[in-house]
Amino acid sequence: MEAIRVELGERSYEICIGPGILPQLGERLREFHFSRVALVSNPTVYALYGNTLLDSLRKAGFDAAVVTIPDGEEYKELLWAYHIYGELLKHRLDRSSALIALGGGVIGDITGFTASTYMRGIPLVQVPTTLLAQVDSSVGGKTGVNHPEGKNMIGTFHQPRLVWADVDTLRTLPRREFLAGMAEVIKYGVIWDETFFNFLEKNREKILSLDSGTMQFIIRRSCEIKAEVVSRDEREGGLRAILNYGHTIGHALETATGYTAHLHGEAVARGMYCEALLSCLLGLMDMKAAERIGSLIDSYGLPSKMPSGVDEERIISSMKLDKKAVAGELKFVLPQKIGSVVVKGVRDSEKVRESIRSR
Amino acid sequence: MEAIRVELGERSYEICIGPGILPQLGERLREFHFSRVALVSNPTVYALYGNTLLDSLRKAGFDAAVVTIPDGEEYKELLWAYHIYGELLKHRLDRSSALIALGGGVIGDITGFTASTYMRGIPLVQVPTTLLAQVDSSVGGKTGVNHPEGKNMIGTFHQPRLVWADVDTLRTLPRREFLAGMAEVIKYGVIWDETFFNFLEKNREKILSLDSGTMQFIIRRSCEIKAEVVSRDEREGGLRAILNYGHTIGHALETATGYTAHLHGEAVARGMYCEALLSCLLGLMDMKAAERIGSLIDSYGLPSKMPSGVDEERIISSMKLDKKAVAGELKFVLPQKIGSVVVKGVRDSEKVRESIRSR
Repeated sequence: MEAIRVELGERSYEICIGPGILPQLGERLREFHFSRVALVSNPTVYALYGNTLLDSLRKAGFDAAVVTIPDGEEYKELLWAYHIYGELLKHRLDRSSALIALGGGVIGDITGFTASTYMRGIPLVQVPTTLLAQVDSSVGGKTGVNHPEGKNMIGTFHQPRLVWADVDTLRTLPRREFLAGMAEVIKYGVIWDETFFNFLEKNREKILSLDSGTMQFIIRRSCEIKAEVVSRDEREGGLRAILNYGHTIGHALETATGYTAHLHGEAVARGMYCEALLSCLLGLMDMKAAERIGSLIDSYGLPSKMPSGVDEERIISSMKLDKKAVAGELKFVLPQKIGSVVVKGVRDSEKVRESIRSR
Repeated sequence: MEAIRVELGERSYEICIGPGILPQLGERLREFHFSRVALVSNPTVYALYGNTLLDSLRKAGFDAAVVTIPDGEEYKELLWAYHIYGELLKHRLDRSSALIALGGGVIGDITGFTASTYMRGIPLVQVPTTLLAQVDSSVGGKTGVNHPEGKNMIGTFHQPRLVWADVDTLRTLPRREFLAGMAEVIKYGVIWDETFFNFLEKNREKILSLDSGTMQFIIRRSCEIKAEVVSRDEREGGLRAILNYGHTIGHALETATGYTAHLHGEAVARGMYCEALLSCLLGLMDMKAAERIGSLIDSYGLPSKMPSGVDEERIISSMKLDKKAVAGELKFVLPQKIGSVVVKGVRDSEKVRESIRSR
């Protein structure tokens, strides 16, 4: 097991990564002295790992309630948060109790939101079981639920007390979801670390066959990069915005198509390639680098081009309503070369349209 | 106009108090450079002060949206927060926009909650128009909405950027609500400042006739005490709990009777007297002091005794579910003398029952 520390003063915490570590979580949680815990999950993940985790918690003396919500991004909304609040009250969770999010990004985000708003905030432990959640959404404290007008429009910053990533859980992850998680891994290479990008180009086969050591390395390196960025800028006042590479267009695509047509990672993959093209159109990067980004995305079985039939104007207008837009100016994270990006407001909508059209 | 500073590092802010200061808010807000503002209010308060405030904002160059929710504690719930989110999205408020809460405690709490969770948190300006909101709920950053199982069960800590209290607005406040606000003023005397308690005993007539100078003094002194306590303990890790004097029993009474039978201040008035009696029953204070507290409450036309027909067991079980309860132990703020309190866990439910029964 490896541990990475996210340095945030009194809100610092560890990300623990390793194979088969799920049964050891209960023991580790003893040090926190929670009065009670509630496990929040969905039926799919709960069927696979619920009992293992509950046993571990019981052995460590924790009285654990279980709350499940249906599986899917469409359930990441306020009504289901309301359901969770009701269950927490029914099971008498108090301010010294903790929520444990067992699942992927949806479970982590809605559980985090609920933890941050139940009795003005209670502790949260993230147990991510998808690649996306292990390398991205469980780390950094962003929580949220969707609104019909946009993703994560309702949300908070609420750092977890601990992130516990058992890489073995990836073995039960549907292939499509695994690949979608790779989009965020590729993102770290583009925004921060060319050597890591090269590693992803060279070790495609090991990664696609879920080689244990290789997986642990790419998850650890992704978390290290995210931890470094978040430690320097917890609430996205500046640097942290670079983590949104691929997300300005990616989020807008998800909103315009109703969250169900693409997995988040697939939308981000398309967003990353579009935003790389936009960077070239604005003269910030040469086309060769954009093509390298597109090729790496393709090589992991992810879509890099926008789907045909997508309404550009809907995407543009969704972007204008995005949390990242300020006073109508669209903000993009634009690569200058592999491993380095800039955050830029773009007023020229025509260039944005052109990057979306290039499929 | 007087200003009190709440010292909270980068979250510090001013409470400005004075007669007729409402029309000057727009000018003052210029320094914050908000991209847009939304005024959240209820139809009653909006009819009285909406135009004055909108004019002031327009003159200062702010493009202000208006969102209203119905008047009453029963609308302080998640469904109405959802309505507000929708309006903010419709009016394209972004992360640099601010919400302005114009009204009493309900408007301040739900607007604060919405501000803290819209796009992971946007700025909030409190414009309290009731005595309760001016001396208590607009200061200190507590936000919340109710759940059928308890008051403010869903909420956050989110400090305002500015509190703007025009004492002239108290002239339009219904008498009953004004008196309910006095309960919180009396609270500050009991928990912190015997001299202030004496002042409230001696200046009853001036206060009840809304003498301008006297009102400004008692609001300022109340805010000073609250600012001092909150600065030392923002998130209720310790000292801040003393502000809950009267609230353990008060909240439970509100929950047990469904929020509509009593105004918050009336429930707190009863809670303060009950908790003073409990303190005597536990041997922490002599009965004379409890009677002085009861008399001051009575002298402001507030109820000190529990209403007949209240179900003690429902009150006790509501208390056990209160945010302040931890692992089933009831926590009380107990006066030792006028001007000084202790926070204590009480396991002896019989003594609690006895204090509730003494009417």
